[in-house]
Amino acid sequence: MAVEVATLMKKLAKDDSRRVVHALKVGLAITLVSLFYYFKPLYDGFGTSTMWAIVTVIVVFEFSVGGTLGRGLNRVMATFLAGALGFGAHYLASLGGEIGRPIMLGLFVFVLAGISTFTRFFPKMKARYDYGLLIFILTFCMVSLSGYRDDEIAKLAFSRILTILIGCFFTLVVSIFVKPVWAGTDLHHLVVAHIQSLAIFLQGFGVEYFGLSQEEEICKADMQKYKTILNSKSNEESLTNLARWEPRHGKFRYRHPWQQYLEIGSLNRECAYRLEVLNGYLKTNQFQMPSQQIHGELQEECMKICSESSSGLRELALALRKMVPPVTAKSHIEKAKIAVENLKKHLEEWRFEELNNAMEIVHVVSLASLLFDTICCIEKIVDSVQK
Amino acid sequence: MAVEVATLMKKLAKDDSRRVVHALKVGLAITLVSLFYYFKPLYDGFGTSTMWAIVTVIVVFEFSVGGTLGRGLNRVMATFLAGALGFGAHYLASLGGEIGRPIMLGLFVFVLAGISTFTRFFPKMKARYDYGLLIFILTFCMVSLSGYRDDEIAKLAFSRILTILIGCFFTLVVSIFVKPVWAGTDLHHLVVAHIQSLAIFLQGFGVEYFGLSQEEEICKADMQKYKTILNSKSNEESLTNLARWEPRHGKFRYRHPWQQYLEIGSLNRECAYRLEVLNGYLKTNQFQMPSQQIHGELQEECMKICSESSSGLRELALALRKMVPPVTAKSHIEKAKIAVENLKKHLEEWRFEELNNAMEIVHVVSLASLLFDTICCIEKIVDSVQK
Repeated sequence: MAVEVATLMKKLAKDDSRRVVHALKVGLAITLVSLFYYFKPLYDGFGTSTMWAIVTVIVVFEFSVGGTLGRGLNRVMATFLAGALGFGAHYLASLGGEIGRPIMLGLFVFVLAGISTFTRFFPKMKARYDYGLLIFILTFCMVSLSGYRDDEIAKLAFSRILTILIGCFFTLVVSIFVKPVWAGTDLHHLVVAHIQSLAIFLQGFGVEYFGLSQEEEICKADMQKYKTILNSKSNEESLTNLARWEPRHGKFRYRHPWQQYLEIGSLNRECAYRLEVLNGYLKTNQFQMPSQQIHGELQEECMKICSESSSGLRELALALRKMVPPVTAKSHIEKAKIAVENLKKHLEEWRFEELNNAMEIVHVVSLASLLFDTICCIEKIVDSVQK
Repeated sequence: MAVEVATLMKKLAKDDSRRVVHALKVGLAITLVSLFYYFKPLYDGFGTSTMWAIVTVIVVFEFSVGGTLGRGLNRVMATFLAGALGFGAHYLASLGGEIGRPIMLGLFVFVLAGISTFTRFFPKMKARYDYGLLIFILTFCMVSLSGYRDDEIAKLAFSRILTILIGCFFTLVVSIFVKPVWAGTDLHHLVVAHIQSLAIFLQGFGVEYFGLSQEEEICKADMQKYKTILNSKSNEESLTNLARWEPRHGKFRYRHPWQQYLEIGSLNRECAYRLEVLNGYLKTNQFQMPSQQIHGELQEECMKICSESSSGLRELALALRKMVPPVTAKSHIEKAKIAVENLKKHLEEWRFEELNNAMEIVHVVSLASLLFDTICCIEKIVDSVQK
C-alpha cells in the first residue's frame, strides 16, 4: 500500500514536476501571509484576520496563474458587491421592527440565493464566474443575517475586504513570480502536441500498414498518442477559460485569440476520429487483406499521402510552436492532394481482369477514401492555424 | 440585453426544469436553517453559529444528491480530522515557548499544506476527495494558527462541528426529500439516450444515403444527436463519481455497477466515431457517387444492415432503460451480420464488365467496410449491456 502510494507519487511528480513546485508554492504563500501578520500585528497578531487571509490563500491558489487570478478577482468582487447589498438589506430589514425584520431578511435571502443559484446554470457564467456567485450568496447571507449593529458591520466588512485583498496579493505574487504556470502556455503546448500526434500517427500508419521497415522506427506507443485528442474537449475548454484571465506573458498578449485554439482543437478532434477508424485497419482483418500485387500498385500513392500530410502537420506544429506563419505546410498538403488525385486516377484505370474479386480492393479503396477525408480535415487545420 | 437574458433563462428552465427547482431548494434550505436558529436560540440567536450553518448549506448544496452527499461527507470528515490534528499541532507548538512556537507552527502548516495540495493531484483523490482536502488544509490552518487557549479551541471546534452537522442535515433533507436529482439516474438515462441516438442515426442514414422516403420521416436534427456522444467522456465520468456517493434509490442499489456504465459509454463513443465518418458520406461528394444501378444492387443489404442494427440498438436501449435483459437485440445484430456477409459475397461475385471504373464502387465499398466496423462496435455494446 505504502509502496504503491510512493510509486504513484513519484510518477505524478515525474510526469509534471510543476505539481511538486505548486505544492511548495502553496506552503510558501501561507507561510508568507502568516509571517506578514506575525511581524506586523495590524490587529491582534495571530487573530481572526490572519485566519481570513490564510483562508483566502488556500481557497484562491490554483495550479495556473489564470485560475488563481480568476478566483481571486471573483472572490474580491463578489465579496465587495454582496457586502454592499447585504448591508443595504440589513438596513432595510431593521426598519421592519421586531416582527418584520426576520420575515424581510428571510425573503431577501431566499430570493437572492435562488437567483444566484439559478444564474450558476448559465453556461457562460458557470465557466467564468461560478466561484464568484457562490461567494456572493455566502457573503450576502453572512452580512445580512449577522446580528451586529450597522456600524459594527461596516467595520467588519472593511477588515474582511482588506484581509481578502492581502491574501489575494500574496497568492498572486507567489503564483506569478515563483515559477509561474500559465494556462495559456499550457493550452498552446497542448494544441501543438495534438497536431504532432496526428503527424506521428499518419507517418507510422503508412509504414505499418504496408509492412515496410524504416530506418527511424516509430514507437507504437507514440502512434497511439492521438487517442488523447479524442476526449480533449473539456480540458481545452477549461484551459481557454483560465487563459482568458491571464495578463500578457511571454509571446501571449492579454487578448490572445484563445477562441482560435478551441477551433483548431475541434478540427484536431475531427481528424482524430478519422484516425481512430484508420487505426482499426491496422488491427483487424475484417475484410480480406488485398493481395501483395494490389498493395504494390497503390502503395506508392498511399505512402505519399501519409508522408506528405504528416510532414505538413509537423511543419504546422513547428510553426505554431514558434508562432511564425507556416511556410511550407500548405505545399506539403498540396502534394498530398495531388497524390490523392493520382490514387483516384489509378483506381479509375484499374484493369479488372487482374482482380480475383472486388473484395480485394475494398480494403485499399476504403483506406483511400478515409485518407482523402483526413486530408480535407488537415487542410482545414492548416487554414485555421494560418489565421 | 435584458430580453436576451430573459430568453436564455427561459430556455435554461425549459431544457431542464429541475434547475429552477434546485434554485428554490437552495433558498428553502437556507431559510430552514435560519428559522431553526431563530426559533431555537442555541447560542445567541442570529449569531456566528447560524452563519456557519448557512455557509455549510450554501457550499455543500449541489445539483445532485450524490454531489451534496459527497461534499457534505467530505466537509464533515475533513473538519473533524483537521480539527484534531490542528489541536495536536497547537498543543505541541505551545511547548516550544515564545520563540519556538511560531517557527514550529509555520513548519507544521507548510508541510501539511504542501502534502495535501500535492495529494489533490492524485486522480482518484481529485475525483472524490478534492473538496475534503481543501477543507482539511483550511481547518488545520484555522485551528493550529488560532491565538486561542487550548480549552477555547476545544469549545470552538465542538460548536464548529455541530453547526456543520446541522447545516449538512438540513441540506441533505431538502436535497433527498424535495424532488431529488439522482446522479445515478441521470447517468442511466444519459447512456440509454446515447444508445438511442446511435440507433436513430443508423436508421436515418440508410434512408438518406439511398435517397429513399419513409412513411415516418426522421428529423435531421434527431440524427445529429449522436454528436453529443463524441465529447461525453468527462460528463459521464463526473456523474459516475457522484453516483458512487448515493444510497439505494429507485432500482439502483448502493453499489450499483457504475463502472459498467463507463465501459458502455466508451463503446458508445467508439461507435459514434464511426458514425461521424459515415455522416461525412451524406454531405460531401469526395468520391464519385456510384451509379444508380450499383446503388440498387447493394441497397438491399446496406439497408438491412442499417435497419437491423438500428432495431437491435433500440431494443437494447429499451431493455437497459427498464433494466431487463435484452431479448431480441442479439438476434437483430445476428441478422445484421448475415447482411454484412451477404454484402461481402455480393462484392466477391461482382461482374466487373458492368463497371465503368473502380471508382464507382469506392463509395459503396468503403461504406460497407465502415458499416461492418460499426456492427462490431455495436456487438460489443450489446455484450457489455448484457453483463
